[in-house]
Amino acid sequence: MKYKTQMEAAKHGFVTDEMKIVAEKEGVSTDYLLEKIAIGEVIIPRNKNHNSISPEGIGTGLKTKINVNLGISKDINDMDLEMKKVDMALSLGAEAIMDLSNYGKTQEFRKKLLEKSTAMIGTVPMYDAVGFLDKGLSFIKAEEFLDVVRNHAENGVDFVTIHAGINRQNSEIYLRNRRVNEIVSRGGSLLFGWMKMNDRENPFYEYYDELLEICREYDVTLSLGDSLRPGGIADATDPGQISELITLGELTKRAWEKDVQVMIEGPGHVPIGDIEMNVKLEKKLCHNAPFYVLGPLVTDIAPGYDHITSAIGGAIAAAHGADFLCYVTPAEHLRLPDVDDVKEGIIAAKIAAHAGDINKIKSAKEWDLEMSKRRQKLDWEGMFELAIDPVKARRYRAESQPTDEHTCTMCGAMCSMKNMNLILEGKDIKID
Amino acid sequence: MKYKTQMEAAKHGFVTDEMKIVAEKEGVSTDYLLEKIAIGEVIIPRNKNHNSISPEGIGTGLKTKINVNLGISKDINDMDLEMKKVDMALSLGAEAIMDLSNYGKTQEFRKKLLEKSTAMIGTVPMYDAVGFLDKGLSFIKAEEFLDVVRNHAENGVDFVTIHAGINRQNSEIYLRNRRVNEIVSRGGSLLFGWMKMNDRENPFYEYYDELLEICREYDVTLSLGDSLRPGGIADATDPGQISELITLGELTKRAWEKDVQVMIEGPGHVPIGDIEMNVKLEKKLCHNAPFYVLGPLVTDIAPGYDHITSAIGGAIAAAHGADFLCYVTPAEHLRLPDVDDVKEGIIAAKIAAHAGDINKIKSAKEWDLEMSKRRQKLDWEGMFELAIDPVKARRYRAESQPTDEHTCTMCGAMCSMKNMNLILEGKDIKID
Repeated sequence: MKYKTQMEAAKHGFVTDEMKIVAEKEGVSTDYLLEKIAIGEVIIPRNKNHNSISPEGIGTGLKTKINVNLGISKDINDMDLEMKKVDMALSLGAEAIMDLSNYGKTQEFRKKLLEKSTAMIGTVPMYDAVGFLDKGLSFIKAEEFLDVVRNHAENGVDFVTIHAGINRQNSEIYLRNRRVNEIVSRGGSLLFGWMKMNDRENPFYEYYDELLEICREYDVTLSLGDSLRPGGIADATDPGQISELITLGELTKRAWEKDVQVMIEGPGHVPIGDIEMNVKLEKKLCHNAPFYVLGPLVTDIAPGYDHITSAIGGAIAAAHGADFLCYVTPAEHLRLPDVDDVKEGIIAAKIAAHAGDINKIKSAKEWDLEMSKRRQKLDWEGMFELAIDPVKARRYRAESQPTDEHTCTMCGAMCSMKNMNLILEGKDIKID
Repeated sequence: MKYKTQMEAAKHGFVTDEMKIVAEKEGVSTDYLLEKIAIGEVIIPRNKNHNSISPEGIGTGLKTKINVNLGISKDINDMDLEMKKVDMALSLGAEAIMDLSNYGKTQEFRKKLLEKSTAMIGTVPMYDAVGFLDKGLSFIKAEEFLDVVRNHAENGVDFVTIHAGINRQNSEIYLRNRRVNEIVSRGGSLLFGWMKMNDRENPFYEYYDELLEICREYDVTLSLGDSLRPGGIADATDPGQISELITLGELTKRAWEKDVQVMIEGPGHVPIGDIEMNVKLEKKLCHNAPFYVLGPLVTDIAPGYDHITSAIGGAIAAAHGADFLCYVTPAEHLRLPDVDDVKEGIIAAKIAAHAGDINKIKSAKEWDLEMSKRRQKLDWEGMFELAIDPVKARRYRAESQPTDEHTCTMCGAMCSMKNMNLILEGKDIKID
């Protein structure tokens, strides 16, 4: 069958190569995927021009995926450094990389990335607009924003964040309900600024049909950005955020009518008590479109440790149905992450995703079960093999050798694993 | 009034100096504390011989507290190293330190610790039994275990973990319902071994009344240990764990009859979906006695990162009513933590406690609000002052200087805080 998008194929009952790969990776049937992709609950972001990709599915019934942000910028315009982050992300198994490049040779970097990346690639065309169009923000014409999207689509980008929800109506609702942290979304704040300076409607909202044509042509998945996501605990789940979410739900339906795949971006900074509600509200208002959360960070007071604050929120969100987690590094709120920060962020996000999956994906806990078995047997090599970061686990143990090689220096002779194994075999334990 | 324990004083409506201090620290009334301490929902662990203490309350309506484990052992018998961990714990504001010393000059270490520690001190007398009594585990007589408790109480220990719940009945239930990870509690496994080798009832269960007399005499809080806590996701919330919890609830009532303060220790390794239930079950079966959780770790697959797996579980537990979190360090399951690990563990536990408090303590989110305000103002010095780890936050930012000093290298000119402040003042933003 000739089809434009995975969704179109699914609606016609046609199983694509991508669906076969995803079914295999997830241990689900292609029938399941056909049904879920047709109704928008599952997406397979895969631009027809991204040849190096190993496709992944995102959505209901599938494992939670994680995304890594990187890219060249004015302050740190070092392509090699960012490529090192790419290598780190790929080696640690991140399913997606967002190239947030916003200054310098962005297209060169993007093309290099698309050539090598097995992970899906996302971008925020808004960040690249000023550089690509070579004119100041306020001077960009509404239609020109689409030229940036078209260029990214041609390059092979699998999904694009588009802040189409911060339209005039939602801007007014936001302005009537001011916040401690105003609009913290970079793309959202730039669009809000552009709208104010030009007294115009949001160009992505105004030209949404044209945008959908571009996405349909290359099967670019729309990641509908939440410009009004809360940037502080005090602002969580406020009128602006929720009114924008309603608009994103409307835009989701319009995209699906044109067979364009969609996911919805979510908060942000959210207290633990609000997270489940936020996931359920997205699923309801956006018709079960996959939910891509940026955190959520469960407190504002831990700069330097926001990989942990977001792992807490991400795990809870994933457990309740969020499908895709954007990593956050220890550098968040302080500076651009370095390669070590990227690693810390990826591991924390993977832990969060897996901890959430234990709650919703039947097979997820098999990994834990196997680790627990090896732990009881004091099979250290076996534990290292299964560890989320075998290198760190090995190094930690090597740094501190126990007298009894079967135990570790935490408990030594009092090792409960060792002692219980003896007692349960009817042997005595000796502690003296 | 002459009283033996805080609980006795509270039952008679007498406000102790400790209650006054705790009321001041928590922003609650002494009337509130009197009511809650009298019924066992709040405890103030404070041995009458621990003079350096700055008392803290644990329980309903009070901020979630954290505990730091350390102590000398056979493999790493370095008193200076452990004292550095003590200094780290005190400087970072940990409210409790458990001295798990189990080899060497344990009493000397314990006395030094009690002399200097403003934090409450807990111990597990079981760990110290072999050394203190100077005989092999299997040769210790039932009554002799009490001698160790008495010594710790005389020294000034504020709370002791006692594994009185792993009695014959619960051992049998456990043996009928075997696990992937058997008895992972160190003290619990040693007692189980002792019981098997000597064919005797659990000495702390058998001599529970005598134990209560010691606790009452010095106002030592009983921390009733959960020997059958799950040590792997597969074992969570199983018959052994819950039957022991029922016993701990019975023992709680017996302690309260003698005015002995009690808290209940909890799991362990628990999937996210079981955490709220575990907290509610403890509150129900143990009559709202404060809940002290050891984690919970939400996955088994992340050795090297268990400060994160436990921060996720700890935050969720605290949000649902757990009162006291035992820190877990990155070294868990691999080796004894070093000083850096201790720091990482404390920060992660403090983040978890605070994230949970946002959900249950009205004043908790004021810290986040103030941070968010300073963030919007790009008041970097102000943010550092409020950061949970000002040193790391400062270092991170200093490592990477932005062109525009008001922003950071993450977003540079695209800083949403800066741009929104300009736009909302009616000014143009320039991105070019």
